[in-house]
Amino acid sequence: MNHLTSWTDLPAATWQACLDRALWHRQHRAWTQSAAGKALGLVFFNPSLRTRASMDLAAAHLGAHPVTLTPGSGTWGLETRDGVTMDGDAAEHVKEAFGVLSRYVDALGVRTFATLSDYEADHEDRAFRAAVAASAVPVVNLESARWHPCQELGDAATICDHVGDPRGKKFVLHWAPHPKPLPRAVPNSAVMMAARLGMEVIVARPDGFGLDADVLALAQKEASKHGGSVTESSHRPDALSGASVVYAKAWSGGTVYDAPELEARQRASHADWRLSNGDMTRTDRAAFMHCLPVRRGVVVDGDVLDHERAIHLLQAEYRLHAQKAVLEWVWGLEGLGTGD
Amino acid sequence: MNHLTSWTDLPAATWQACLDRALWHRQHRAWTQSAAGKALGLVFFNPSLRTRASMDLAAAHLGAHPVTLTPGSGTWGLETRDGVTMDGDAAEHVKEAFGVLSRYVDALGVRTFATLSDYEADHEDRAFRAAVAASAVPVVNLESARWHPCQELGDAATICDHVGDPRGKKFVLHWAPHPKPLPRAVPNSAVMMAARLGMEVIVARPDGFGLDADVLALAQKEASKHGGSVTESSHRPDALSGASVVYAKAWSGGTVYDAPELEARQRASHADWRLSNGDMTRTDRAAFMHCLPVRRGVVVDGDVLDHERAIHLLQAEYRLHAQKAVLEWVWGLEGLGTGD
Amino acid sequence: MNHLTSWTDLPAATWQACLDRALWHRQHRAWTQSAAGKALGLVFFNPSLRTRASMDLAAAHLGAHPVTLTPGSGTWGLETRDGVTMDGDAAEHVKEAFGVLSRYVDALGVRTFATLSDYEADHEDRAFRAAVAASAVPVVNLESARWHPCQELGDAATICDHVGDPRGKKFVLHWAPHPKPLPRAVPNSAVMMAARLGMEVIVARPDGFGLDADVLALAQKEASKHGGSVTESSHRPDALSGASVVYAKAWSGGTVYDAPELEARQRASHADWRLSNGDMTRTDRAAFMHCLPVRRGVVVDGDVLDHERAIHLLQAEYRLHAQKAVLEWVWGLEGLGTGD
Repeated sequence: MNHLTSWTDLPAATWQACLDRALWHRQHRAWTQSAAGKALGLVFFNPSLRTRASMDLAAAHLGAHPVTLTPGSGTWGLETRDGVTMDGDAAEHVKEAFGVLSRYVDALGVRTFATLSDYEADHEDRAFRAAVAASAVPVVNLESARWHPCQELGDAATICDHVGDPRGKKFVLHWAPHPKPLPRAVPNSAVMMAARLGMEVIVARPDGFGLDADVLALAQKEASKHGGSVTESSHRPDALSGASVVYAKAWSGGTVYDAPELEARQRASHADWRLSNGDMTRTDRAAFMHCLPVRRGVVVDGDVLDHERAIHLLQAEYRLHAQKAVLEWVWGLEGLGTGD
Repeated sequence: MNHLTSWTDLPAATWQACLDRALWHRQHRAWTQSAAGKALGLVFFNPSLRTRASMDLAAAHLGAHPVTLTPGSGTWGLETRDGVTMDGDAAEHVKEAFGVLSRYVDALGVRTFATLSDYEADHEDRAFRAAVAASAVPVVNLESARWHPCQELGDAATICDHVGDPRGKKFVLHWAPHPKPLPRAVPNSAVMMAARLGMEVIVARPDGFGLDADVLALAQKEASKHGGSVTESSHRPDALSGASVVYAKAWSGGTVYDAPELEARQRASHADWRLSNGDMTRTDRAAFMHCLPVRRGVVVDGDVLDHERAIHLLQAEYRLHAQKAVLEWVWGLEGLGTGD
Repeated sequence: MNHLTSWTDLPAATWQACLDRALWHRQHRAWTQSAAGKALGLVFFNPSLRTRASMDLAAAHLGAHPVTLTPGSGTWGLETRDGVTMDGDAAEHVKEAFGVLSRYVDALGVRTFATLSDYEADHEDRAFRAAVAASAVPVVNLESARWHPCQELGDAATICDHVGDPRGKKFVLHWAPHPKPLPRAVPNSAVMMAARLGMEVIVARPDGFGLDADVLALAQKEASKHGGSVTESSHRPDALSGASVVYAKAWSGGTVYDAPELEARQRASHADWRLSNGDMTRTDRAAFMHCLPVRRGVVVDGDVLDHERAIHLLQAEYRLHAQKAVLEWVWGLEGLGTGD
């Protein structure tokens, strides 16, 4: 069964086929009936704008019927932990909820953000994996604690479309300030995506805000297979120098689980990492990317977003095209792999 | 006009035809266009997962277009009482809301739980009946204060599918603990459903938690027509002995309206009614049912839900199939009654 | 690009064509595929029942696929102001949100009520205009701070359908009490609509509750083109005398921005403006209209709503028909303008 939990579910050739197909979908923007008579259930434990709209439309474009549920808002709160006595707020367990939903639909998409309070649950992607375990149909990750594979595919397609052959080009994942501690699913996936594209990846972040060592190791291994590299830097000017792509993203520091107040102070002390057009002048006329939503004037200056080299809207658009490819892969539909 | 308020709207032959059609739909799982050009409005005054997803999909399977509204969450709060001066939270009256919606769609589904604070309003199903009175199109009850006919039909189909000929077999409706006082629409409908199937129905519950006398009288009358019986018991081992089906469900005690704090204490004192696999060994290898959502470790042990004889997921699946039959009946579509 | 911000986007001939088409749609109630392969995004910053259901269905009737989003409830809160540092509740700016959404869909509908705290923002319709500015596809106003053009078209069609030739007939926009200060988009649009129909328009309201002078001036100018007139009155009996249509609506007083507590007291002092059947006897057997939602016993007596001359449900129904015409105009579909 074609679950999509992370990039590891998509071997490099399949990943490339999905990426090519995303490019094809953008060119053709076709509404087909290839998934007629199928239903897609979308379950959002967390807010969503792009993912919600683009997954609904990805299904509709293929002729499938989407149904969106938001636990706790119009539906029951859901328990994701195993073996607990359910005497709290959650009226239903993921085992039942996804067991049931998977009998109604032909695939499920699930969003379940990191808790940022339970390291092990987050690191093991427990909530998402609980949904997968309970489901009788394929489950697509719409951002879990650890990964955001739909974002990853859309981002890769955006780079291939806009930058051209990405191999050997410099990709800077640039940490950014934020009033809240944010999960790392997007930066984890961004590093992995750029590594798979064979880019020279630099994670620019303040000390104490490094990505997990195991993620970096996986990315380095993947990069080496595709002629790229992955390194870290806390020196912004060096990191930005010569970059072809700058991908800004806020994420929480390493102390968030054990000392959240300390993490907040550390985060606040790096407000000067807000990306400006001045920073962008150090690059090789780099394209600017961000997964959105983005806080103007906090994460990045509005000027950067309004600049002609900002491609965050194209990037968001590619979510639709990439997710059409993902659904084709999940359901084994014709088209994927042939680019036609 | 084919409103579906409770089992009384479906004479036994029609009820049986819907049940047969639900079994047929499970076998064929067909997407048709029999209701193309029709719209179904779904209005949820209370949370829903199964009903929301399965009604949306029941409409889609038949080619109809579903629209879901949740008053108070993205739509206006609604007043259901007659003649009140509306200077409180509700911005709109059911008279207008359902009067309007019924001009947009070809049928409405409405969920409006018991208040558990106004006995007469609940006992007369006032909120649901107000929606029916205001509507110019058929209204389907998606759980009112008193009845849950879609659950009832799905449950009956589940038993016929899984247990085979139900006549004369023992059906135990087993009261269960819960941190909150819950309405009785589901137990009321479960008793009525098993009575119609001609089963030997036992309502096992602590003293003070009996169902309404008028519901039991109706069920006994219905059972006698179909060769079954309905009795009550506060002795769990006797009740479970020899059972073919155990249907667990929490509901509030009789003091909930007049003395809610007393009811809470009484309810809490029966935490030992939580159903275990030990309890299930007293039965005749009974199938386990629950309408869901269910609190693991509170209502029933997780082991019971994870046991191979638990059929609560099949039961939930049948909501889809039964509701397709209900919509066919509501709209007078071909298929219903012929099983084809 | 065919944005629909207010009546000024629809020259009189186009407005009339939309109105005729709404009448045609009511007669035919057809489901077509004229907009197949198109998607309509609906974004509600404020609650909605009629607009939400009727826009979803307007799209579906034409074969288009609707997607509804409610910022702050399942999606991110959105910032509409320009140039602010986004360190508050809003996680995303309208620039990004509508920039992205407009890449997914073929038209957007947006509801964004008046703030009633920032006069200039409201008077310039800033939030709605920000959405328009950010969108790459047509945007339809589903009620902004200043205008509600879909309501306006539906109301005009209702009058033409029910009252017949409206020219020269008396239309009374009748202020009504309400526990909350309400925006003026509906009264503004109602006056403009009746002016365009060439009616004798009287705005009956207490002193201090007059509509904006610029709106009245625009309406007077439009009325004079169509043989009608627009005047104000604080004398209810005179205003109602001989009326063919009475349109009740609550709106806030002129002091709401600068002295909201004073406005509340002034509003409360006019509770006797609640419309009764006694008031209606002064008219020429006038049809009663209200845009809904309406508070029974506060805005108007329940008797008025339950009277045979109340046409508020027909009025709400026309939202569907009018919005089908609007989408046909927005997308340049066949049918509009020919009445066929």
